[in-house]
Amino acid sequence: MSVIELFEVTDKVDQTDLQLDTNGRLRHLLTMHGLDRQRITALLDEAETYLSNIGKPVVRSSALRGKTVANLFFEPSTRTRASFDLAATRLGADVLNLDVNTSSRKKGESILDTIYTLQAMQVDVIVVRDAQSGVPAYIARHVNDFVSILNAGESDVAHPTQALLDLLTIRLHKGEFQNLTVAIVGDIAHSRVARSASEALVTMGVKELRLISPESLAPAAGSVPPQAKILHNLDEGVRGADVVMALRIQRERIGNIDGIPGIDEYFANFGVSHERMNLAAPDAIVMHPGPMNRGIEIESSLAESPNSVICEQVRNGVAVRMAVLATVVKTLDSQ
Amino acid sequence: MSVIELFEVTDKVDQTDLQLDTNGRLRHLLTMHGLDRQRITALLDEAETYLSNIGKPVVRSSALRGKTVANLFFEPSTRTRASFDLAATRLGADVLNLDVNTSSRKKGESILDTIYTLQAMQVDVIVVRDAQSGVPAYIARHVNDFVSILNAGESDVAHPTQALLDLLTIRLHKGEFQNLTVAIVGDIAHSRVARSASEALVTMGVKELRLISPESLAPAAGSVPPQAKILHNLDEGVRGADVVMALRIQRERIGNIDGIPGIDEYFANFGVSHERMNLAAPDAIVMHPGPMNRGIEIESSLAESPNSVICEQVRNGVAVRMAVLATVVKTLDSQ
Amino acid sequence: MSVIELFEVTDKVDQTDLQLDTNGRLRHLLTMHGLDRQRITALLDEAETYLSNIGKPVVRSSALRGKTVANLFFEPSTRTRASFDLAATRLGADVLNLDVNTSSRKKGESILDTIYTLQAMQVDVIVVRDAQSGVPAYIARHVNDFVSILNAGESDVAHPTQALLDLLTIRLHKGEFQNLTVAIVGDIAHSRVARSASEALVTMGVKELRLISPESLAPAAGSVPPQAKILHNLDEGVRGADVVMALRIQRERIGNIDGIPGIDEYFANFGVSHERMNLAAPDAIVMHPGPMNRGIEIESSLAESPNSVICEQVRNGVAVRMAVLATVVKTLDSQ
Repeated sequence: MSVIELFEVTDKVDQTDLQLDTNGRLRHLLTMHGLDRQRITALLDEAETYLSNIGKPVVRSSALRGKTVANLFFEPSTRTRASFDLAATRLGADVLNLDVNTSSRKKGESILDTIYTLQAMQVDVIVVRDAQSGVPAYIARHVNDFVSILNAGESDVAHPTQALLDLLTIRLHKGEFQNLTVAIVGDIAHSRVARSASEALVTMGVKELRLISPESLAPAAGSVPPQAKILHNLDEGVRGADVVMALRIQRERIGNIDGIPGIDEYFANFGVSHERMNLAAPDAIVMHPGPMNRGIEIESSLAESPNSVICEQVRNGVAVRMAVLATVVKTLDSQ
Repeated sequence: MSVIELFEVTDKVDQTDLQLDTNGRLRHLLTMHGLDRQRITALLDEAETYLSNIGKPVVRSSALRGKTVANLFFEPSTRTRASFDLAATRLGADVLNLDVNTSSRKKGESILDTIYTLQAMQVDVIVVRDAQSGVPAYIARHVNDFVSILNAGESDVAHPTQALLDLLTIRLHKGEFQNLTVAIVGDIAHSRVARSASEALVTMGVKELRLISPESLAPAAGSVPPQAKILHNLDEGVRGADVVMALRIQRERIGNIDGIPGIDEYFANFGVSHERMNLAAPDAIVMHPGPMNRGIEIESSLAESPNSVICEQVRNGVAVRMAVLATVVKTLDSQ
Repeated sequence: MSVIELFEVTDKVDQTDLQLDTNGRLRHLLTMHGLDRQRITALLDEAETYLSNIGKPVVRSSALRGKTVANLFFEPSTRTRASFDLAATRLGADVLNLDVNTSSRKKGESILDTIYTLQAMQVDVIVVRDAQSGVPAYIARHVNDFVSILNAGESDVAHPTQALLDLLTIRLHKGEFQNLTVAIVGDIAHSRVARSASEALVTMGVKELRLISPESLAPAAGSVPPQAKILHNLDEGVRGADVVMALRIQRERIGNIDGIPGIDEYFANFGVSHERMNLAAPDAIVMHPGPMNRGIEIESSLAESPNSVICEQVRNGVAVRMAVLATVVKTLDSQ
């Protein structure tokens, strides 16, 4: 009987309870679901204190001195792993990078035993990425009182630090969320980025959230907030939008979309391009979680245009992860 | 002519001499063989100073500030590599992790040339894991006076830091070794853990050491101390034991054991279970070096039971490795 | 349209301009081409300040405190990656090691987007190794004013820090370059080491530079300085030489060399041996960039002989990389 088989179906209410301690402080970060506007605003405010301009010294602190952060990535990742690594290092933590593909799993060690091992080594924060849904919550349910779990990407389900960096990027450019129309474009069905961002944007009270995709890649019922408008026409989706976020599409998937036999058709129908952006608000910003398929879901030169905030998203990602790390460690220390 | 072909057959007396310097100080840690009770006790005493309770800040020191520790793992490992990494980091060392599967060996570089390279980079301690027997001693014989070699797992032959953490765990629970009956269960024939632990436990003067395995997995003549009792019946082996250590069995091996066609039969005959533990001393502890095959060599719930000290073994592993690192570096510095 | 296809043919003049800032300070290190004797001498002088003898504490500094160095290796490497890692660490930098084979490239992320990501994370220095020629210069042309690119090995084209460590090793043994005859032996055609070393040695004004190889492995026209003598007979090449550098030959290549059906023939014709070294100057030094194929391009015992400076090359490599890191960071800070 494998531990994998024991995964409970993730109950959203459960997870929300799970990620706060009994005093309502953030203890784990598993999902954007259940984090209210005030808490998110506090995280963004703290993240802003870790920002510096490109070319200026990075902001450093000793908030995590003496702490150990383990990056436990069961899916390959360069950018998210690097971002957490730098965030922890710049807060003074010791960082342990574990490439689990090539070691424990070969030996058949269960995820939970790997976690128990890290916990016994007095690791304070475990950053987890896994291709299977339910893993971060499952782990969080089993760790002791002195360990915090951060979800760094979970199947199609959640990527909360990505949502926070998206919010921070939008807030830095647009100020308030209340008057914004946000369009998210692409493979909504399989995107943890879309799901976490949707939840967070609705919580922050955007005026309108549009999720635009081919029909066969529309979100499953109940997987996104009911406030979101589900659309299948990009012109309609982009019209008047203040924020346009293109999602990564897996190339293999393109062949299986009705009426979209190839990359050219995908780009023609769902590619975010200069031409399309003419329909958006004049000062609209263009976002992408990376890594980009240039010329497929986004026009290559658009990614370098003045309206693109894609590099800022990356910079803000480190700051947001510093804020999350500092927040959960403060919670652990106050137990 | 490959350097590999040059490996001498490892002479135990040789190795013992090799790991002490001319003043009798620990210079390398290659094997438990030849380490006497006094020296082991000193290492355990030092390791205890690095212990803190779960939830308390870890013990840190600057004993290795300015030193460089390289982890050179030719076999994949999560837990042992992480344990050495944290041990070195918490002593203030710089740590270099080398994944040698994917680089030098592809280019055909000999092990010894890799070692000479690290030595030339002024690495102070090289932690080596290798699937081939004789490699750590071979390396130790060739390094200069300023480098220490630590064996982090050598074929079926030796895993001395594992033996030390096992001893520390037993001592913390049982105090003295003289009155203890210790049972080690499983694939004794192929276990470096069993061999190093056996040598260490005999040196510490346990009352009785039992090695229990299927007949085809019994230790080769001369591979374990003559004081060990070789048994093939688990009930007999566990009866009255104060310490029961289950060993990892490779799943592939199970099909080749006489009368044990599958996992169920293995568990029925050699699995350490709650039921079996009823035969042991009432306060017996259950150990496992990890990673566990739950339901094969150990009943899953037993690993979480109050008698299980498996997580403590992991915590103690970091402390023991800190003690070994601090000890050999002190030896290097006093040359 | 892949970014790879966009690589411009590398113009040497261009690259030279590229690696200096408008005040003539070293901003990137891409090639030895265009670095004059004075600049090289300054780098070697600085590197010497980072040298300490084997067994003595390493030289450390805080020149890179608060800076981040990323090692971005698209080709596997143990020694060069480790050398840059230690160099950065010993200067107090935070180091980010990216194994790009197993992550971004799987996802099809372009090199340039990976660079933009690191740049957005406020990485200061990016150390790049790539199997494709033109990549380091291409990247350097696209980064912002606050990022420095160091070439850690580029296809068959350039390996400038290797050339610098070779120069430093020669200078430590021979003092001035003006009276030296240097012989480089082996697969000149495919060796970035030979190309960078040749350029550097000619700049430093050696009396004679000989490049010795089988005819089919001679350098392409224009790929090495015109001052170099191209030879195909090793006796002739080694005669009277003060420095003999053996190059690594890929085993697969040996079968395709005219008149050299196997390893024995290669060694007989182009192996640097004790016997051959009798033809060289009495105090000639033997060099090899590593990793060595002992018994193929170099006699194994010669590598351990008193004339061998192969381990010193490795030690000097760390010092040279510290000097380069400190120099480019000083340039960045003075923008």
